Amino acid sequence: MYLSEKQKAMHIKPLATVLYFMALILGISTNAQKKSFTVNQDRLEHRIFDLANFGLQKNGETERVAFSDADIAAREWVIQTMKSLGLTVTVDVAGNIIGKRQGSDTSKKPISFGSHIDRVPHGGNYDGCVGSMAALEVMEVLKENKVKTKHPLEVIVFPNEEGGVMGSRAMSGNLSTTAFGVVNSTGFSMGEGIMRLGGDTTRIMEAIRKKGSMAAFLELHIEQGGILEKEGLNIGVVEGIVGLKWWDVTFTGFANHAGTTPMDARQDALLAAAKFIVAVNEVTNSFEGSQVGTVGRIKAEPGAPNVIPGNVVASLEIRDLSSQVIENVFQAIQAKAKEISTDSSVEIKFNPLDTTADPALTDQGIQKEIENSAKDLGLTFKYMPSGAGHDAQDMARIAPTGMIFVPSKGGISHSPKEFTSAKDMANGANVLLNTILVLDKKLD
Amino acid sequence: MYLSEKQKAMHIKPLATVLYFMALILGISTNAQKKSFTVNQDRLEHRIFDLANFGLQKNGETERVAFSDADIAAREWVIQTMKSLGLTVTVDVAGNIIGKRQGSDTSKKPISFGSHIDRVPHGGNYDGCVGSMAALEVMEVLKENKVKTKHPLEVIVFPNEEGGVMGSRAMSGNLSTTAFGVVNSTGFSMGEGIMRLGGDTTRIMEAIRKKGSMAAFLELHIEQGGILEKEGLNIGVVEGIVGLKWWDVTFTGFANHAGTTPMDARQDALLAAAKFIVAVNEVTNSFEGSQVGTVGRIKAEPGAPNVIPGNVVASLEIRDLSSQVIENVFQAIQAKAKEISTDSSVEIKFNPLDTTADPALTDQGIQKEIENSAKDLGLTFKYMPSGAGHDAQDMARIAPTGMIFVPSKGGISHSPKEFTSAKDMANGANVLLNTILVLDKKLD
Repeated sequence: MYLSEKQKAMHIKPLATVLYFMALILGISTNAQKKSFTVNQDRLEHRIFDLANFGLQKNGETERVAFSDADIAAREWVIQTMKSLGLTVTVDVAGNIIGKRQGSDTSKKPISFGSHIDRVPHGGNYDGCVGSMAALEVMEVLKENKVKTKHPLEVIVFPNEEGGVMGSRAMSGNLSTTAFGVVNSTGFSMGEGIMRLGGDTTRIMEAIRKKGSMAAFLELHIEQGGILEKEGLNIGVVEGIVGLKWWDVTFTGFANHAGTTPMDARQDALLAAAKFIVAVNEVTNSFEGSQVGTVGRIKAEPGAPNVIPGNVVASLEIRDLSSQVIENVFQAIQAKAKEISTDSSVEIKFNPLDTTADPALTDQGIQKEIENSAKDLGLTFKYMPSGAGHDAQDMARIAPTGMIFVPSKGGISHSPKEFTSAKDMANGANVLLNTILVLDKKLD
Repeated sequence: MYLSEKQKAMHIKPLATVLYFMALILGISTNAQKKSFTVNQDRLEHRIFDLANFGLQKNGETERVAFSDADIAAREWVIQTMKSLGLTVTVDVAGNIIGKRQGSDTSKKPISFGSHIDRVPHGGNYDGCVGSMAALEVMEVLKENKVKTKHPLEVIVFPNEEGGVMGSRAMSGNLSTTAFGVVNSTGFSMGEGIMRLGGDTTRIMEAIRKKGSMAAFLELHIEQGGILEKEGLNIGVVEGIVGLKWWDVTFTGFANHAGTTPMDARQDALLAAAKFIVAVNEVTNSFEGSQVGTVGRIKAEPGAPNVIPGNVVASLEIRDLSSQVIENVFQAIQAKAKEISTDSSVEIKFNPLDTTADPALTDQGIQKEIENSAKDLGLTFKYMPSGAGHDAQDMARIAPTGMIFVPSKGGISHSPKEFTSAKDMANGANVLLNTILVLDKKLD
């Protein structure tokens, strides 16, 4: 829940005055909570390197897919670090690691923040890790400065984000039980993996946090695109996480001898698919906005150089912050496919796949506080959608959510080449810290 | 060797006159050799069905890949049939079955004709079989009518045409020894297969027939394209077998997250490949003539719906009767690829593959005799290239060669749906018969 300017004027200011006097009595400077301390950039960077040791290979790259021994070891290290910061640590039945810090007002719901530490195969050191380590850093700075917040604060490290945003889905009550059967590159199914992480699939419903049970949720993450770097900006204020839809598109022509079948007598499924791929690009670009359309997978059969392909299956993915825009782009692609089908004598069919995520908008009030925090810190920023899915996507179902992006070098992600500078990580962590403190004051 | 009109006037007519009187003495009507007998359509069709029994599966389709037990059994049946027709049968060191009929003039080189009986996996009953069974039928008609030719006649049934025109390549001296290692779907290598067929790889050079050692070579074959059927014609006079060139075309872009990478920041290798496939079609169609250009195989990596493909490999095949046309089409495709590369920031490279065949032109004099035979029989015809490779392609290196096409229903080939009517087969066999008899009279 976020209070409007008017509500703030009515409720927050008197409360702040009371708190100010309470703080004076307790010897805590409220100014300190707003301005006078920042995160320790070196310590944050060091934790990123420490974390990368879990799953480090001989070639210098780290492999830490969810449920692997490296994942389990890294989680144990996170738990010990949380404990050393004075947090009360629990692991819920879905394997979410929750490190809690008491607030001064026991009636308050927690302000939660965090990310994940599992990685895609052959991934990088920053995706998820920056948000998780920054959350620990925020807790350490608050401890060092003896800051007491009204709201309880929670660091959440979600398990298996890369394999289906497992922890956050379970927490928001949206983890389908069919997902338990999905096996990742470790060879473990999600069901087996939950057990390995100390969770319990038989009681998975107990991981659910009811809507309204958190005051707010914040996630700091690397952008994974190249926009901030390209535009020379420090901070992305995430407007929401785009929704996505997937289709399998099948092209049915007629396989025939590539030597004996004249050009004008062909029903070439691959030629039709090629025209379709070009059309997906053109149609997606023809709309205003930041929607994306991608064909990433293609299979042509029989697949010999001397045979005209009779059958092709290709994937289609469309993403946007607006479900309506996704639908409009799809309609336009369908219309274009109809023309291609007629021209090529190749049948084109769209089979919608189960993999669909609705767009998740972040809270506009929290967006504004992230913006203000960036400004206060002298950082440049822009409002932008997140093209990638995140744990924040599911948390937005149950809590007012905010998301902070920091630049990714070259827009490279899900790759060992992924990189975000220590300075950029510290900038993001400082925005996270300041936003938490401001929300602590402003939120109910 | 084919004689010009002038040569005919000089040499052939006096010789024919001598032969005419010789024939009168021997009680053979020379008229009968030209007009009064035709092939037995039912018998020809029956042999096609008999041959299809070798390798017949429970589903009613026949599998008879070279070197299989079914192939060996069918070859034995061919050998016995040849013997029953009075032919002297030998199997050469490459596994070519040669059934020879004596000529009246021992100084003459043989007129040879034939095709193959091996099949592609999941192939049809007509490809190769029509030419082979028609060759036997020609021999049976000549025997029934007690026709004595000047030239010896040879039926050749070439082994493993589908796996690399093995028999005819060996006979023309162009079988590379590296081909011995190629394993087909039976699990046998070509070297093992030659031994299974009664050949001998250690003496493979003995299969070579020197250039000029045959008076002519003729092959009847199904068209495998849909041109004759579409135009309602009976006979194709093959001008030559098109040459072909293959390339692997590699597209190198940059794999990235399909959600976070804006449309204008992508280096999408599959989008570039799609534009290339469309360009191959457009460029090939932009030339006058019957050249064909095909992309039949494509692989995109990493191949996930949510990842922009960074690498694509696609095949490119160009065929034409003229090597120069192939080169011109390729140059135009390369120029177009350069534009696509620049526009897409995707590197495009062409790697020529070993699979290259030079165009093989048939003998123009024999083409004319095939045309005349068709006309004499009241059949319609057209001159056309063969888009597919055939044994005749290699025989054209060592002998004046002619090739006769009959219609394929729907242009379907290399499929159990392949079909040529008995009437069409008989038409082709009659043209083969008449052409042989005319060449016997006209050739040196």
